[in-house]
This record gives sequence, C-alpha cells and structure tokens, in this order.
Amino acid sequence: MKKITILDIARELNITFSTVARALNDHPAISTNTKALVRETAERLGYTRNKIASSLRSGKTKVIGLIVPRLELSFFSSVIHGIEHVINANGYTLLLYQSRESIKREIKGIETFLQLQVDGIIASISLETTSYKHFTDLRKQKVPLLLFDRIIENADIPYVSINDYKGGFMATEHLIKQGYKDIVIISTNHKISIFQERLKGSIDALKFYNLPIREDLIFYGNPSREFGESCIRQLYQNGEKFDGIVTPEDYTALGAIQALKSYGLKVPEDVGVIGFANEAFGDYITPRLTTIDQQNIAMGEQAASLFVKLIKSPDFYAQPIPKIIIDPILIPRESSVRKS
Amino acid sequence: MKKITILDIARELNITFSTVARALNDHPAISTNTKALVRETAERLGYTRNKIASSLRSGKTKVIGLIVPRLELSFFSSVIHGIEHVINANGYTLLLYQSRESIKREIKGIETFLQLQVDGIIASISLETTSYKHFTDLRKQKVPLLLFDRIIENADIPYVSINDYKGGFMATEHLIKQGYKDIVIISTNHKISIFQERLKGSIDALKFYNLPIREDLIFYGNPSREFGESCIRQLYQNGEKFDGIVTPEDYTALGAIQALKSYGLKVPEDVGVIGFANEAFGDYITPRLTTIDQQNIAMGEQAASLFVKLIKSPDFYAQPIPKIIIDPILIPRESSVRKS
Repeated sequence: MKKITILDIARELNITFSTVARALNDHPAISTNTKALVRETAERLGYTRNKIASSLRSGKTKVIGLIVPRLELSFFSSVIHGIEHVINANGYTLLLYQSRESIKREIKGIETFLQLQVDGIIASISLETTSYKHFTDLRKQKVPLLLFDRIIENADIPYVSINDYKGGFMATEHLIKQGYKDIVIISTNHKISIFQERLKGSIDALKFYNLPIREDLIFYGNPSREFGESCIRQLYQNGEKFDGIVTPEDYTALGAIQALKSYGLKVPEDVGVIGFANEAFGDYITPRLTTIDQQNIAMGEQAASLFVKLIKSPDFYAQPIPKIIIDPILIPRESSVRKS
Repeated sequence: MKKITILDIARELNITFSTVARALNDHPAISTNTKALVRETAERLGYTRNKIASSLRSGKTKVIGLIVPRLELSFFSSVIHGIEHVINANGYTLLLYQSRESIKREIKGIETFLQLQVDGIIASISLETTSYKHFTDLRKQKVPLLLFDRIIENADIPYVSINDYKGGFMATEHLIKQGYKDIVIISTNHKISIFQERLKGSIDALKFYNLPIREDLIFYGNPSREFGESCIRQLYQNGEKFDGIVTPEDYTALGAIQALKSYGLKVPEDVGVIGFANEAFGDYITPRLTTIDQQNIAMGEQAASLFVKLIKSPDFYAQPIPKIIIDPILIPRESSVRKS
C-alpha cells in the first residue's frame, strides 16, 4: 500500500506542499481555516506524520531508554515508577528494555536505543555482565548514560546506588542484636559489586561483634528461592548448628523460610531470617519477612533528577562525575524478631 | 559539541565520502585494510552511525512496541516473557511502555512508538480506557496492532485473550463444589470487558447450581488489596452471613484474607477464598491462594506468534480478523480447600 505523504494532501487540496507542511506545524502564517482543512484531509487520507524526519533535524526525540535486568522484581518496577515520574514531569517519555541478566541482550538493547536515537540511556547492569565496553563506549561517544543500583565503579559514569556494604552490615547486626549467634551468610557467585559489598558488610558485622567467621556457614550461588532452599538442606544434612540466616535478596530468604518450615523449624523462634530488597511479597508471607529497603522510589526519582540535570548541562560528563549513594533502611518484621 | 559525520572521517583519512560510507557498510568493493582503517578512525573520532537514516530508507526498524498497564503485576511480566521470546526469535526487538492505567499516558505511548517508527504495536488496554479512537486510528492507518488480555471486542483488531466468562464460572463453581453456600462476589466498577465477563460467569454459576443471586453480597470497586479488606469490613459490620469469596484478581483476594484473619475467621475452614490471575505471591502466602491461571506465558507466545504471522502477510488486517481465546485453568490451593 502506498504511504500517504504531504504531497498527496497538497494535490488533493490543490495547494502547495509548503502550505500543507506549515499548516501541520501550526505555522502562524497559515489561516485557521486552512489548518483545519489540511488536518481534516490528512486524517481522511490516513496520513501519518513522519516524525523521525523531524527528530533527525532537531536531534531530539525526547525519549529516554531504560535498561533493567528483570521486570518481575518489584524492586525494579518501583524504581521505574520513581524514574518515570520525574522523567515525564520534565517532558520526556520513558521506554523500557529488559536485559534478562544477559550481556548479549544488554548490548542489543543499547544498539536499539541508539538506532532509535533516544536522547539518553539509564541502566542497571545484568548479573552476567563483567566487561563494560558497551557502556564505556557510550561515554566515549558522549551519549548520556546514567547507572543505578547495579553500577560500574571508576568508569566516570554518573550513578545512583545504595550503600550495600552498610546494608549487609545492618542486616547482620540486626540478627546479632536479636540474640542470634550462629549466623549463616548466603551470598552469590556473581562478581557484581553490590553482592560483594553486602558480603563484606556482613563479615565486618560478625567481626565487630566478636563472632567467629565460619567458612562452612557461608554459601555462594545464584540468588533465588531454590538456592535458599538448597542452603538449608545442606546445613541440615551436614548437621550444622545455626540460628540466623542473612540472605542476598528476598527470594533466597523465602526459599530458606519454606525449607526451615519443612524441617519443622520455627521462624523466628528457632531461626531468624532476613532478606534484602524489600520485595512486595515479603509483607504478605507468614512470618512477614524482615528485610533491607533500598528506598526504591527515591532511588528512581534521584536517578532521573540527576539525569535530567546533566542532560540540560553543556557537558553531560563534566568532571567531577556525580555519584549519589543512598542509605539502606532496616525493615524489621516477624521473621527475625523474637517475642520476649 | 559538533556531531562527527562520515565527512569528518573522509577528511581525516583524505579519502572520499562514499569510500567511508561503503567501508562502514562492509561493501565488497572496499579492501579489508581500508575497512579496518575507517572503523578505527570512526571509533577514535567518536562517530555514531545514524541508523535512523537507514531505517527511513528501509522503512523497517525491526522494533515492536509493547504497551502494558502495570509492570508490577506478575501477570504482565510473565506475558512479556512469552512475547519477548517469540519476538526475539523472529529477529525483532521489544520495547516497553507503561500506561499505568491512564488513557492519557496510553495515547502518549502510541504517539511515541509512531514517532520512533516501530514496525507495530502490541497492547493491553488501561482500566481507565473507555474510548478507543487511539487504537482504531492505528487500524485505519494500517499500523500493525494486536491486543492481548484486555482487548476491544468488535473493533476488527486481532487479539489473544482468555475466556473470562469461563474463568468466573469456574472460580465460583469450585467454591460451590467445596461446600461453600453463601458466596460473596467481589467485582469492579470498571467497564472493561474482562471483569464484566468474569462477573457474568460467577452469576451464571450460582444460577446453574440453584443458589440465590443476592445483590447485597455483590461488591463493585477498584480491584486492590484495600478493596478486598473493605468488602470484608462491610460484610462484617452489616452482620452478613457468608462463607465464600470470589474476587476479580489476586490482590483483592489477599486483602480479603488478611481482613478475615483480623476478625479471627479461618481460611479455608470458615471462609473459602479464590483469586484470579495467578500472581506469583499467591503461592507464598499462608494459606496458599487458590486462583485462576491465565496461561500467561502461552498467552504471550501466542500473541507474539500471531503478530509475527500477520506482519509477514500482505495485509495485517485481512478478513477474517483472527481472535484467539485461551482457556483459563483452575489452580486449587489451600485457601478454598477444606480438609475432609
């Protein structure tokens, strides 16, 4: 089917191409009557405005691309709310792309956003990503890029993250203060800094409170409900003595709680459990899950505000590169609070 | 900052514009050495290829836009997985836009996707949407559009949905067969067909099993945890006799269960509760939530497969317009199954 152009509208009305173009652009030199006529005709013929051509000329699409690892985590959907709110209030539209923790898909997402000439990209990197050329190249090409939560240290790319070290320390300290002594630390085998920092924080909390660091109580794997279950199964089969579980995120904590229940252990009476990320379901389960909140919406809003501020400045990457670090918040609920 | 063009690369290397362009396009007439030199220079100067210009010429971006109401519902994130899987396997990239149940935002999303010249749009309409011009206009302009789950009947737009009437019937029948007799139906005040169909199905199940239709046990509101709680509060305050609750979706069921617990009522012993949509959290809560599964991933895969098939055909909107209706599946769990 032939695509309707401005020329077709001009021919139909027996007026010039430029009159049609100016009418469609609401030019003051064109009368209200002509504008109405042009618009009616354009609609009748099924004319779709070629806005790409306009954006090529202006160099601005007013679209920001967002790359997130996984949409099913409520952490990311809340951060998105925060980002969208600020981005929209500043006249930009947000489009999303899901990397699903794959570096290959992450690269494809960046390519697609560049192809569509978005005005900039906001991203949280995938668990699988250990080389960062696709991000550092954006910086080289002066394409605005801001990272949040899962960020790259020392890459001269602006970011907003939380103090994960403090989060890990806080979570572990909470269990210690509740009287738990034999504390299991479930960590990950991913190189990504957020989990490494949480682990360091946990270990330092044990040291700070003069508790032994027992390698047999530290687990490394892929954070998930299944991994939480499997850690408890191993502890049980090895006959380990333990009464507290620090986890890298809430789904691992959920798996641990379900496994503990299946062995007849009571949470929080026998074993205290703490999650990380304040996923929505943690407030619905029994016992309600103690967790570390990352101020998701605030993180999103601060990331978007910083992005908008930088994109309006003469040089997005002007030194010093701004880095915002948000404090985590302990959310004590039933899974770690023993009734006295 | 000046944007680097092919001309700048040509000047830098003292070769022609067309040599650079052909080198960047991997043209066979250009030597491997020259190609390498051009690419090195392009990278060193920070050249970004203007892929919009290429897509203008080919008319294809190979990008599909997806409009979903709310990303925090696991129903939508699972459907997205299904869609993405098939879309990617067919060489397309999926970008997402969130309408957040707002018709204004929905229209903005369509405009943005048209501006970026995506090859087509897949959408599930917002709860607030009662006029459909922004969708029917796409059809008029021959822009490929496919709807899923929340669809428009009789608009000659292809869709994939579930049999919501059957889902409503099934949910209510399940409670009746479990021995519940005084059944409350929580419905919505939204005009959207999916909820109307579920309500019709519920009422027909009561009729089928010769139970009375009691208007005082039917509630209309905004489906949410809060609405579920408020319905139970009203029932309790009015001293109504009831022992079963059919809800329009799982969060409303969650709110109802929490309110029932707060009044000391036991689920499923005193009151049976059934949700709709099989949100992820339903499997984690106590008691585990009985619900209706919408075959989310299959729905996504079928929607994407149909879309890809139509987009490859000569006329996306050729008659008859295909409509796929998927069967819902009952997922019986603890919240409605009395131990005998």
